Amino acid sequence: MREDYSNQLESITQDLIVMTALVGTAITEATQALLEDNLELAQSVIESDSRINDLNVGIEERCFRIAALQAPVATDLRLVMGSIKIATSLERMGDLAVHIAKQVRLRYPNPSIPTELAGTFREMGASAQKIIAATGRVIETRDTDLADEIKSYDDTLDRLHRELFTAVLSDDWAHGVEAAIDVTLLSRFFERFGDHAVTVARRVIHIVTGEPYTK
Amino acid sequence: MREDYSNQLESITQDLIVMTALVGTAITEATQALLEDNLELAQSVIESDSRINDLNVGIEERCFRIAALQAPVATDLRLVMGSIKIATSLERMGDLAVHIAKQVRLRYPNPSIPTELAGTFREMGASAQKIIAATGRVIETRDTDLADEIKSYDDTLDRLHRELFTAVLSDDWAHGVEAAIDVTLLSRFFERFGDHAVTVARRVIHIVTGEPYTK
Repeated sequence: MREDYSNQLESITQDLIVMTALVGTAITEATQALLEDNLELAQSVIESDSRINDLNVGIEERCFRIAALQAPVATDLRLVMGSIKIATSLERMGDLAVHIAKQVRLRYPNPSIPTELAGTFREMGASAQKIIAATGRVIETRDTDLADEIKSYDDTLDRLHRELFTAVLSDDWAHGVEAAIDVTLLSRFFERFGDHAVTVARRVIHIVTGEPYTK
Repeated sequence: MREDYSNQLESITQDLIVMTALVGTAITEATQALLEDNLELAQSVIESDSRINDLNVGIEERCFRIAALQAPVATDLRLVMGSIKIATSLERMGDLAVHIAKQVRLRYPNPSIPTELAGTFREMGASAQKIIAATGRVIETRDTDLADEIKSYDDTLDRLHRELFTAVLSDDWAHGVEAAIDVTLLSRFFERFGDHAVTVARRVIHIVTGEPYTK
């Protein structure tokens, strides 16, 4: 029974790690679709999201079954409780990749972003990919020092978000209002992606240390 | 013990209803602050959000204690499980009201929106207020028919969101890129507010009927 219980907890952590891998693929492919105006890839990101959603639902149900049947306490209770919240954040990160992909689909066959901003979005995609990979490692190792790494990628995303704001608001902006809105929304999706990773990292710290988390 | 347990479940529902009331105040005041360029009111929305956050944390902790100590099954388990998710959505709705208030603070003493769009934003605020009030009633009564009401307010928010998009993209738009972005983001906050209400309604249906929810 105890061993079974410990296997159950372990399998939830494993599923969270699988979720981070799927979210990593989603944000990488969404970025690539954005940079290449690749409709097929955008479509694939949109369709693959159901796997992430299913994992979220499955994790939630198993966490509650464990809570009800095993009455976990202390770290185990925080793990079960935190896993539901982490799964919700990861599911939302998948949605943000889908939002990017849908924007590509909406504008196809036109490009979604002006050429001169491709470099900034490529950098955002790379930071988003790094932040979700680091999130997976934090969940796996529960190494709270790694959480600092997440913070630094999030800072990069925030900086790039501000850069894009500056670009669309500059006097040199020559692409009109619609493109400015598109860039702002796309940029915001990446920026929110980073925020959710920070939330996950805080949850892991809470699981490990019992220190209060903020949201 | 049983009575105590039933009181615990009831008190969680009561706290969710309190959350909807606080979120209702937040979105109403945020809208008013937006329409009046009222910095003091915006500030009050931002500061009051901690009460909503605290309720969310408290509900989550009590739900888990109940799950661990009482091993609820069937409807009770769905209630405990769903309440955590509902609290998360309500907390996020509070954040969206804060986003609107922060936008008012950012642009103050300038107006946040062009005068000719005030009517549309007033309508958005009214729909958002109605949707959160209906959400409170759905949580209280578990009347799944009321969920249709939520859907109809959400449709209104989506329509107004599209209207604002059309306005900022029209050839008549005379307020430049920054104002277009501000309007788009503000409009999106209201639109997302509605989406979260729909999510809550789906959760309540799931609690009552056990039918699968989607996200």
